Amino acid sequence: MNLDTLINEIRPVSAEYFDLAKERTSQLIMPFRAMGEINSLSEKLCAIYQTLSPVIKNKAVFVMAGDHGVVEEGISAFPQEVTGQMIGAFLNDMATINALSKTNDVLVFVTDAGTKHDFNDLNLKNNNAFFQRKINKGTNNFVNEKAMSLKEAEKSIMIGFEIATNQIELNNLNLIATGDMGIGNTTSASAIGCAILDEKPEIMCGRGTGINDITLRKKINVVEKALQKYNLHSKSALEVLSSVGGFEIGAIAGVILSAAYHKIPVVIDGVISTAGALIAFELCNDTKDYMIAGHKSVEPAHSKMLNYLNLHPILDLKMRLGEGTGAVMAMPIIESAASVIRDVATFSDAGVSDKE
Amino acid sequence: MNLDTLINEIRPVSAEYFDLAKERTSQLIMPFRAMGEINSLSEKLCAIYQTLSPVIKNKAVFVMAGDHGVVEEGISAFPQEVTGQMIGAFLNDMATINALSKTNDVLVFVTDAGTKHDFNDLNLKNNNAFFQRKINKGTNNFVNEKAMSLKEAEKSIMIGFEIATNQIELNNLNLIATGDMGIGNTTSASAIGCAILDEKPEIMCGRGTGINDITLRKKINVVEKALQKYNLHSKSALEVLSSVGGFEIGAIAGVILSAAYHKIPVVIDGVISTAGALIAFELCNDTKDYMIAGHKSVEPAHSKMLNYLNLHPILDLKMRLGEGTGAVMAMPIIESAASVIRDVATFSDAGVSDKE
Repeated sequence: MNLDTLINEIRPVSAEYFDLAKERTSQLIMPFRAMGEINSLSEKLCAIYQTLSPVIKNKAVFVMAGDHGVVEEGISAFPQEVTGQMIGAFLNDMATINALSKTNDVLVFVTDAGTKHDFNDLNLKNNNAFFQRKINKGTNNFVNEKAMSLKEAEKSIMIGFEIATNQIELNNLNLIATGDMGIGNTTSASAIGCAILDEKPEIMCGRGTGINDITLRKKINVVEKALQKYNLHSKSALEVLSSVGGFEIGAIAGVILSAAYHKIPVVIDGVISTAGALIAFELCNDTKDYMIAGHKSVEPAHSKMLNYLNLHPILDLKMRLGEGTGAVMAMPIIESAASVIRDVATFSDAGVSDKE
Repeated sequence: MNLDTLINEIRPVSAEYFDLAKERTSQLIMPFRAMGEINSLSEKLCAIYQTLSPVIKNKAVFVMAGDHGVVEEGISAFPQEVTGQMIGAFLNDMATINALSKTNDVLVFVTDAGTKHDFNDLNLKNNNAFFQRKINKGTNNFVNEKAMSLKEAEKSIMIGFEIATNQIELNNLNLIATGDMGIGNTTSASAIGCAILDEKPEIMCGRGTGINDITLRKKINVVEKALQKYNLHSKSALEVLSSVGGFEIGAIAGVILSAAYHKIPVVIDGVISTAGALIAFELCNDTKDYMIAGHKSVEPAHSKMLNYLNLHPILDLKMRLGEGTGAVMAMPIIESAASVIRDVATFSDAGVSDKE
């Protein structure tokens, strides 16, 4: 399948089940919509799954990794080799995403969509959860030239789509999440956010892994230069991804397209994943209704992006880690929302008096 | 055991393990404290359990129920018989707390601490999860006389303590939550909040199950009258509970005291549970460090109370149901926090480069 065919195959969620779910919510034995955003989340699940009895079965997170040429500009607090080292940690069950996924019964699939690291030497515990699909050894430094070609941008999306699609079908997944690893990728994500939201870099750029004021100033300048160089405020999503994106961000967009294609919800993690969500949304607006925002991170761009997508984050815990951590932590809340509309009795079933 | 003996037996959490946990957090393979409030929650768990490897074992929610004489004043949107009907729903696995507890692997224990309903006629599925410990058939209307005697106030606390203590020991619980049922109890909880925080009723009273403007005005007047009548701003916690409290609120305070006594965390639900938390805190300040705020509800008093207790709610989802729903939904997030400090590797263990 190519990208255009895929986009044409994505269908909207069910307006009919959304309305039926709202009707059912009003009959549940609780004051009217007393579960607040959980009631809304229940209804969203019904619209996606086309049922009034949503059941979450198997869950997975797709951690997409890539390196960024723009780190040459000195915009990160950590050295570039950390991308590869962290993939090693993911594959040896040592990282935060592993701990959280084990606790929340979530499978972890890691993809090298384009890092600088050579993984042939790795002594892997979980070989089959690692996909080596390197498009290139990191992107180009987008201050000098486009991060990747248009062809590579499309390829990054299709890699994410294919990996997610295979695992959804193989493991009967019906709730998936996106995650990322890539030193320098908040710079890329902020640039994508600026381009698509038409926002200024000084509003969108944050401290990423913990940069100081001088480095933050550099980061803002780098994004500003790129926006001007490529005239990004007027370009298509694929052109934005090609100009300032990352291979992992394209792959995340592909995971989201796969969720929509399979009519299952996808939990979006932080600012990197949401940059991928912006690309997916611009390619195909219907994908938005399959997205659930796992959390709101401290990166300033993240809130702006979530507002643009009209997504209400489940958690707001001042996190800024990535890896899919905020998305995986939100999954049990989504399971709770499924159970509310599925299992709670109605006033008439339970013989409880309604409001006077 | 009596209340004074119990209070004397409660010990502070471990400052030593809190410091060790902060040290460990700084070594985990993530940017410094990149998990935000989850890092803080991990450290709190270490201080409570006195370990760097906290493991959540068995979980339960204690739903405490009581009726309120003050409903005579027309301050609720639902008729008083709903308290008993909802207990029926809890015991027949039909309510929201049942759905959420099943989804999150939490035991549900329901106590009638003083409702008007006679439960002898109930055809119960879960008899052994129901404790009939009626102190009285509802409280007195506190506009006319104190809600209960000082002796009854103490008894309500000790009932909560004993029920929680028995189940903690019987079921090897190490994470418990509080929940409530009682038509009219946001009026009681708001009055307790006004008394202990020295706040005004018009700031603290909210719409509870969904009252209109006229009823809200009545509710504010009722609380205002009680504050004046009993001169509550200068009274002890036990006197406040006796004057304007509820049997279920006293019992919730008792559950919290039991958690602190057993050195395990207790997840506080919404405004009613937090009124119980205020009573527990005023009786014994050390209890506060065993409390985890499950969520922030839409009741205006709730944020104020949480601030007073310096508790940061895990969830903020515009909920206002009670029953323990916000507390139970937060439990998997607490399990996630336990796993982060327990299972994530350090920079040196994982061979990952630290910040440049």
